[in-house]
Amino acid sequence: MDKVIERIRQSASTHRSDLDELLRVPSISSNPENKADMETAAKWLLTRMQKLGIRSEIIPTPGHSIVYGEHLEAEGAPTILVYGHYDVQPVDPLELWDTPPFEPSEREGAVFARGSSDDKGQLLIHLFAAQEILAETGGLPVNLKFLLEGEEEVGSPNLKPFIEANIDKLACDAVVVSDTSFFSRDVPSMLYGLRGLSYVEVIVRGPALDLHSGEFGGAVANPADALARMIAALHDDDRRIAIPGFYDKVRELEGREREAFASLPYDEAAYKKDLGVEALEGEAGFTTLEQLWARPTLEVNGIWGGFSGEGAKTVLPAEAGAKISCRLVPDQNPDEISDLLEKRLRELAPAGVRLEFIRHHGGNPFLAEPDNVFVKAGARAINKAFGKMPVLVRGGGSVPVTETFQSLLGVPCVMMGVGLPDDRLHSPNEKFDLKQFHKGIEAAAWFLHEAGEVK
Amino acid sequence: MDKVIERIRQSASTHRSDLDELLRVPSISSNPENKADMETAAKWLLTRMQKLGIRSEIIPTPGHSIVYGEHLEAEGAPTILVYGHYDVQPVDPLELWDTPPFEPSEREGAVFARGSSDDKGQLLIHLFAAQEILAETGGLPVNLKFLLEGEEEVGSPNLKPFIEANIDKLACDAVVVSDTSFFSRDVPSMLYGLRGLSYVEVIVRGPALDLHSGEFGGAVANPADALARMIAALHDDDRRIAIPGFYDKVRELEGREREAFASLPYDEAAYKKDLGVEALEGEAGFTTLEQLWARPTLEVNGIWGGFSGEGAKTVLPAEAGAKISCRLVPDQNPDEISDLLEKRLRELAPAGVRLEFIRHHGGNPFLAEPDNVFVKAGARAINKAFGKMPVLVRGGGSVPVTETFQSLLGVPCVMMGVGLPDDRLHSPNEKFDLKQFHKGIEAAAWFLHEAGEVK
Repeated sequence: MDKVIERIRQSASTHRSDLDELLRVPSISSNPENKADMETAAKWLLTRMQKLGIRSEIIPTPGHSIVYGEHLEAEGAPTILVYGHYDVQPVDPLELWDTPPFEPSEREGAVFARGSSDDKGQLLIHLFAAQEILAETGGLPVNLKFLLEGEEEVGSPNLKPFIEANIDKLACDAVVVSDTSFFSRDVPSMLYGLRGLSYVEVIVRGPALDLHSGEFGGAVANPADALARMIAALHDDDRRIAIPGFYDKVRELEGREREAFASLPYDEAAYKKDLGVEALEGEAGFTTLEQLWARPTLEVNGIWGGFSGEGAKTVLPAEAGAKISCRLVPDQNPDEISDLLEKRLRELAPAGVRLEFIRHHGGNPFLAEPDNVFVKAGARAINKAFGKMPVLVRGGGSVPVTETFQSLLGVPCVMMGVGLPDDRLHSPNEKFDLKQFHKGIEAAAWFLHEAGEVK
Repeated sequence: MDKVIERIRQSASTHRSDLDELLRVPSISSNPENKADMETAAKWLLTRMQKLGIRSEIIPTPGHSIVYGEHLEAEGAPTILVYGHYDVQPVDPLELWDTPPFEPSEREGAVFARGSSDDKGQLLIHLFAAQEILAETGGLPVNLKFLLEGEEEVGSPNLKPFIEANIDKLACDAVVVSDTSFFSRDVPSMLYGLRGLSYVEVIVRGPALDLHSGEFGGAVANPADALARMIAALHDDDRRIAIPGFYDKVRELEGREREAFASLPYDEAAYKKDLGVEALEGEAGFTTLEQLWARPTLEVNGIWGGFSGEGAKTVLPAEAGAKISCRLVPDQNPDEISDLLEKRLRELAPAGVRLEFIRHHGGNPFLAEPDNVFVKAGARAINKAFGKMPVLVRGGGSVPVTETFQSLLGVPCVMMGVGLPDDRLHSPNEKFDLKQFHKGIEAAAWFLHEAGEVK
C-alpha cells in the first residue's frame, strides 16, 4: 500500500485536471436544456472506466442514464459497490457566484464549481483510487462495482426500479456512498443516519384572475395571505410541527446518542457567524445537532404569488404557491407525511380558495449499524489517510439511496464522504477542499485494501 | 345641445379609431423600457388638443411629463379642470391576455386593451366632448383646463409638487376626475368617497446565502416561513387588522350611509360567480359593500422567496419578501399607517432574521360633499346621457389626486367615471365597454353644458 499511496500523491495534478474536466460539464439533471451535457458526463465516466479495464456500460433509463462498471477479478474477496451521481443541482441565483459555476476555479485551497463536492469530486475519489491501485499492482484487492446515476438531484426516480430489476448484477457485500461531509475539517466522521424527505408543492387558487386590490380588497380571500396563514399554522410556538400525527412514528433519540452528539465540538457562536445570523431557531427541547440530525423538519423551499417585480402593483393575486419539504427521521414514511401535510393544508385553507398539490420526490430516512465490519473498515481507512479515527455521527440531509440499498440489497452502507460542512452544496460558490480530495483518494484506496481483508 | 349630441353620435367611428390609436401606445409608466412610448402618448395628446385650439404644452417633470391644455374663452362662466392619466399598468402575466394588450380588439361590445378603461378611454371622453362642442358651436360653455399626467400608476410622485407650484395656473371651480366606474351597467353612479393607500415592501433576510434544507433545516430561521408567520399575524380571526393603532383614526360609517349601501342592488351569488370564488372573506360585522368602500384593508400584493421554478430544490432561502398595501379610509394617514405596519412587522420578526423596508407611493383617502352644485351638475349630465340619475356611492380604489385637488385647490371633485365593475383594471384582458365610451362622451358634453349654467 505504501507504493499505492506514493503513486496517488505523485498523480495529484493529473487527478486535479481530470476533476476539472468533469466539472466543466454542466450536467444539471433538472434542466431539459442540459440533456446533451448529461450524456457528455456519462460518456466521460464510461471512457474513464473502460480505460482502467473496468467493464462498463451506459444503461438508458426513462430519464438520465446510469453508468455501470464492474471489475470482478478478486476471487474469494468481498464485493464492494461504489455509488455516486454525476448530475448536479441548478446554479441559480447565478449572479451570486464569484466565478462561473462550470469553470472550475482554484482558490483558498479548494476548487469552486457546481458539483465539485456534490458529487463529482467525491465519486471520482473512488475511481482514482482504483486507477492507482490497478496501475501499481495490476489488480484490485476486492471485486469492485460502480453504480453512477444521473438523477440524484431530481430524486432518483429510476434508480430503485433499476436496482429491483438487477438484484443479481448489483449483488455485493457492502455499498460505499461518498456523498456526505466530515463533521469538520479537524473532526473526520462517518455517518450512520440520514434524514428522509417528503416534498410537496401547494398552489392556492382564489379569484379567477388577478384583481385590483382597491376595487376588491377587503371582501375576497387573498391567496397569498391565505397561503401565509396556512404556512404559519404548520408550526406551533415551540417550533414543533403542528400537523396531527406528524410525530407518531418518530423514533426518539437514545440516551447514548444524545451523549455522543453532546460530546462533539460544536461552537454555536462560530456556527451563527458562518451562517450570518444573529440567532438560531429550532424545535424547543433539542440541541442544534439533535435538531439537525435526529428531528424532523418542515421548511418552505420556495414561495411565490402576485407581483414581485420592481416598484408597486396594486394587485390581489389570483394564486400563490409554495414548495414545502419535510426532512424525516426513522421511522417516518415520506408518503404518509405528504398525506398528512396535504390533509392539514386542506383543513387550514379558508373557504374562498382552492388547493392543488404536486408531489415531488421523497425518500426514506436511513439508520445503519455502526458495528458492521465494512463500516469499521471504512473508519480504519479514514484513520490511515487523515490521521484520526472518524467519529460516528448522523446527518441532516437525505441520501435516499442509502435506505434503498440497505433494504433491497440487504447490505450495509458505508458513508465515507469527505466533504466539509461549508462546501455550500446546492448554493452559489459550491467548492470542494483539495486536501479532502487528495486525502480522500488515499482513504478510498485504503478502504479497498481494508475491505479486501474482511473475511 | 341636441345638435352636439347628434354630432357626437355621427362621429362615433372616428372616436373609436382615435381611441385605438392611443391604446396602441404601450405607455407603461413603471417600465423604464417604455420611456419613449410615454413621450409618444404625451405628444399624441398634445397634438390632439392643439388641433382643437386648446393652448397646450408638455411640461417635463423629474419623471414622466404632464400634458396641460387650456381653453379659456367663456368669460364669466365657471372653470372646469379635467384630470386624467395617459400612463397604464404593466401587462404581466402576458400569457393570460386573450389578445395582445396593446393591439385593441373589439368583442362583446367592448374594446380590449391595457389602459382602455384605466384611463385612456375615460380621459378621451372629455376631450372628444370638447371637440364636438367646439366643432358644432365654435366655443365652449365653460373655461376648460386639461391636466393629464403620466405617473398615476406609479403614485403620481410629481403631480402634487406641480399643483403646489401652479395653484394660479390650475385655478378652477371644480375638478372632473373620470377614473372610476358605475356601480353596474344598469346602475349609473357617482363616487363621493375613495380609499387611500399605503404601500410597503418588506424583505426578510436570514442566512447569508441559500442553504441546503437538509444540512441546515430545523436549526435556522427560514425567511420564507418567518415572513408567512409575520403576514399571518397581521389579521385576527375576524379578519380585522391586528396592528395596534391601525383603526384609531377610522371614521365609522354613518347610519344613513349604511342604509344607502344596503339599498343598492347587490347580488352576492353573482358577485362570487364573477370572481370565480366559492366564498367571500372580509372583516366580520360589515357587509361586502361596506368592506369594500368604507373599511381599511391590508393585502399581500406579492410574495416571493426561494425556489419557484419547475420541480424541486431543497433550499432554505436566504431571503424572502412581500409587497403589502393597505387601503385606507378617512381619517387614516398613509405615512402613519406605513409606520405602524413597519413597527408591527419588526415586532413580529423572529430573532434569526433582519428586515429591510422599501416604501412605495401612498395616497390619502377622499370623502366629498355630495350636495355640491358641480357634483349635482354631473349627476344631471349622467341622467341625460344614460337615462337614469346616478346613485351616490363610495369606491374601494384610490385616486389620490382627488384628495390633493380638494385640499390644494380648495374645489370639489366631480367623479364622473363611466367604467364598469368588470373592466379588469390592472388585470389581463382589461376592457372598456363601447356603450359606456360613446354615452360617456355625451355625458361629458352634457356636463360642460350643465356646469356652464352654474352661477
